[in-house]
Amino acid sequence: MTTPISKQQAADRLLQHDHILLLAHQYPDGDTLGSNFALCIALQTLGKTARVVCGDPIPEKYDYMYEGIPMPDFEPAYICALDVADAKLLGPRMEETYGQRVDLCIDHHGTNTGYAKETCVDSSCASCTMIILQIIHHMGVTVDPAMAQCIYTGIATDTGCFKYSNADALAHRMAAECMDIGVPYEMINRVNFDMKSRARIELERLALDGMEFCHDGRVAIMVIDNAMVARSQAKENDMEGLPPIPRQIEGVWVGITLRQKADGNYKISVRTGTHADAAAICALLGGGGHNRAAGCAVDGDLDTAKNAILHAVEQAVPRVITG
Amino acid sequence: MTTPISKQQAADRLLQHDHILLLAHQYPDGDTLGSNFALCIALQTLGKTARVVCGDPIPEKYDYMYEGIPMPDFEPAYICALDVADAKLLGPRMEETYGQRVDLCIDHHGTNTGYAKETCVDSSCASCTMIILQIIHHMGVTVDPAMAQCIYTGIATDTGCFKYSNADALAHRMAAECMDIGVPYEMINRVNFDMKSRARIELERLALDGMEFCHDGRVAIMVIDNAMVARSQAKENDMEGLPPIPRQIEGVWVGITLRQKADGNYKISVRTGTHADAAAICALLGGGGHNRAAGCAVDGDLDTAKNAILHAVEQAVPRVITG
Repeated sequence: MTTPISKQQAADRLLQHDHILLLAHQYPDGDTLGSNFALCIALQTLGKTARVVCGDPIPEKYDYMYEGIPMPDFEPAYICALDVADAKLLGPRMEETYGQRVDLCIDHHGTNTGYAKETCVDSSCASCTMIILQIIHHMGVTVDPAMAQCIYTGIATDTGCFKYSNADALAHRMAAECMDIGVPYEMINRVNFDMKSRARIELERLALDGMEFCHDGRVAIMVIDNAMVARSQAKENDMEGLPPIPRQIEGVWVGITLRQKADGNYKISVRTGTHADAAAICALLGGGGHNRAAGCAVDGDLDTAKNAILHAVEQAVPRVITG
Repeated sequence: MTTPISKQQAADRLLQHDHILLLAHQYPDGDTLGSNFALCIALQTLGKTARVVCGDPIPEKYDYMYEGIPMPDFEPAYICALDVADAKLLGPRMEETYGQRVDLCIDHHGTNTGYAKETCVDSSCASCTMIILQIIHHMGVTVDPAMAQCIYTGIATDTGCFKYSNADALAHRMAAECMDIGVPYEMINRVNFDMKSRARIELERLALDGMEFCHDGRVAIMVIDNAMVARSQAKENDMEGLPPIPRQIEGVWVGITLRQKADGNYKISVRTGTHADAAAICALLGGGGHNRAAGCAVDGDLDTAKNAILHAVEQAVPRVITG
């Protein structure tokens, strides 16, 4: 059982502690990294010893977030997980080491499992970095450009560059606040939203070739298997931003992306509009996430995974069948 | 010779006149339409007679901007062009009728040719609707949700949904101001940035198939000819948002899209990053636009058009050759 705490209380806890270890989730994205590095810089500004740990390598394109930031080695006295909705999402190795020892989790996922001793969740925030910005203010730290670019990155990446339903007025105002401080947003947007390798373009073409539709085009399924990845020569950082594609097609309520993992099993991403709840669909297969974007995993071959997720869609969104 | 005037003066002119005709540019986009409909609603709110005219049909997806707004027929006493950088861009028919009679042009293009009697240009604004919002404030009109959604549409569409270099803090703050008033931004973003017809996806694939690179991948050229349009069954409203694609490829400084017109000649769109000035490139072929996004036209077949634009790129950006 976790204890829910406010942002002010979270700020107080951080002020009270030192030797703080910050944890990002596996397959790190702009929001978990932005949250971790922004808070790490803020804590170091206060003279504290802090560092960020992630179970997976950090994609090169996020280099700008931590260049020049010292990452000292130390015995952690206080452990915080940022943007990590479930201890499982720390990744197997990190979960084993730290899963039972997280003192504070700061998160914007309404589905947070409450694995930490104390939890500060605000699911009204489009990004976890928006919560971090408020906590940094509560800590009395002046936001500098190094923190601002991390916070902006989280807002931009978790809103699809201000495109999704979560891109509300507060998200825009916090982005503007970061820009006032100084954010190289043109570079950040280009790197995250406007740059594709030739391999990525090839992979998209292969994936589009095999796109399947069912229920009168209300459900679209895109498959990325290991053979396609090999053929396109796509690397891990060419893979981001694929899950939104199926739902971008006119008339699609539920967009599904099945991505084969190295072990042959499938990771499933679900994207929905106003007609369906992605988190409810994925919950049926043991996953979770947000209303419009969620994920789960299925062990088995492609047909098994496809049948499982289609069945979950039909159960969670019966209207998808009748229209 | 035009007289430059301030936003306050533009507001004063509009307050002083009635029977105001507003003009949008040909191939109307979210910004020219958003500017025109927002100002039209504001003028009608003041009890004035006003209407919007465009030389081309308005794409269906913009229906929401003018539903329920009366468009009365009247003899114009004052003519304003909004987001129209050159009288030519009114389209041949509108240029003939109104080209010499424009009393006021409100625009955010630094390349505005000054064809109107008075011109209010602010090229620091990402969208023309950002200028219109300020003018509506100067007129003392309270912005309502109908105006707010038009203004938001212009900001969002002209910044590539807050992705381009022009998406600065002011653009974000004005978007937030519109959202506070009430904007169905999820619908607007989906319609403009997140929805593709199956025909559009097919057209993109055909265009990607034929993508050419030169100067070590620093220049990418994409062609959309009439045969590809026919094969994909794409309609006019499936065509928007294609020009950014070539520059999205890693390493590309100058992205060029050649689109064949009905008469067989080519319309050329140029997109650049920090390495090159799109407006300077297009100016060499009699076109214009912004630093990062500009256009021109070339009469002749595909090879003629391709050679002309490549030559212009090499002249305007000599470093593209040497790297």
